[in-house]
Amino acid sequence: MKVQLVSNLLDANSAIAHDLRQGFSRRGIFVLNLMSAPGAGKTTILERTVELLRERLRIAVIEGDICTTIDAERIARQGVPAVQINTEGACHLDAHMIARALETLPLDLLDLLIIENVGNLVCPAEFDLGEDLKAMVISVTEGNDKPAKYPLMFHEARAILANKIDLLPYTNFDLAVLRRDLDELNPEAPLFPVSARTGEGLEAWADWLAAAVKNKQSTTAAD
Amino acid sequence: MKVQLVSNLLDANSAIAHDLRQGFSRRGIFVLNLMSAPGAGKTTILERTVELLRERLRIAVIEGDICTTIDAERIARQGVPAVQINTEGACHLDAHMIARALETLPLDLLDLLIIENVGNLVCPAEFDLGEDLKAMVISVTEGNDKPAKYPLMFHEARAILANKIDLLPYTNFDLAVLRRDLDELNPEAPLFPVSARTGEGLEAWADWLAAAVKNKQSTTAAD
Repeated sequence: MKVQLVSNLLDANSAIAHDLRQGFSRRGIFVLNLMSAPGAGKTTILERTVELLRERLRIAVIEGDICTTIDAERIARQGVPAVQINTEGACHLDAHMIARALETLPLDLLDLLIIENVGNLVCPAEFDLGEDLKAMVISVTEGNDKPAKYPLMFHEARAILANKIDLLPYTNFDLAVLRRDLDELNPEAPLFPVSARTGEGLEAWADWLAAAVKNKQSTTAAD
Repeated sequence: MKVQLVSNLLDANSAIAHDLRQGFSRRGIFVLNLMSAPGAGKTTILERTVELLRERLRIAVIEGDICTTIDAERIARQGVPAVQINTEGACHLDAHMIARALETLPLDLLDLLIIENVGNLVCPAEFDLGEDLKAMVISVTEGNDKPAKYPLMFHEARAILANKIDLLPYTNFDLAVLRRDLDELNPEAPLFPVSARTGEGLEAWADWLAAAVKNKQSTTAAD
């Protein structure tokens, strides 16, 4: 009974996500779904990413949190449209929430839509939001055992950002060990060591993301 | 339909948790349910706590993770019984999982059972495990916005550990702001600033926990 319902929920989500994905492609919008544990630094990374890309791409952001509008306010200060979804207890975003949030965004004027998921290393990985790219952030303060303990998230992500590398000297985290673990779980995903605080490494990430957006748009235009 | 099932699930969990709580009280076992985001340092705190208390109390530990037995192996090295529950995808422990794990523990020879929940700031707070005390760990590297964003967890905890205070000089985290936020959400919960790495602050936490165990045992004995 329990398994049955979970499967129905995921099926219903997939159907909505499928429609979202078609709509995004029709409009040439590239969609990033960014995930991490609480406090890994997603929002600060997004502030910096928007700063680096807003001259090159038309960007909007959907912020997912259980409550508060803190994050959408932070992003709106960067001068791009930002919507806040409050899940009111739910531990992840689902495709239906995204569909409703889209109603408030200027979809015909966007190149890149960034969705910041609820801070959670488990449930968000299971819910398709119609995105082109799932990416995740691990903070180096979280420890090297995270890929072993949360393999689905590390396997599903198509790009991984290791944040807070300015704190590396004060932790026992080893980036080489992380790369080795990813070689097992997810060998093709690029790893971007970054510090959202100092800005180190974020240009490489932003350039890679911009290239992925352009690549989708040129493919769509050729259809 | 969805709400209905969630409510049934929680009702079923509460019924099992109620039985667990009666069994623990009958045996004079104090139960701690320890929660946090991934990578906040729960396991290292438990290693240190066991080290500080194992001469005074008979302790066992139940480790909850989606997969791997890394944490139970770490605790077993401290010379106390440790059981690993693998939730196989589930983002929290429930009372039924605890009931099954208990079958492998020497319940008549225990004063303190510590349950380390799955690393997740959302779902574990909703599932009663029959514990006497919910406690939570926040790492100071996670940022000051966590109580606003995950209010249920910060409200439900009866004790809060702020870990990794050795990293305070390298972050913009403010312990006074955390205390002020807790004064709103949860004024009676003590806040223990600790560093699991250096050991700072952990004796105060361990002494407080030992006093809570003794308090329950003297109350139970008086019945």
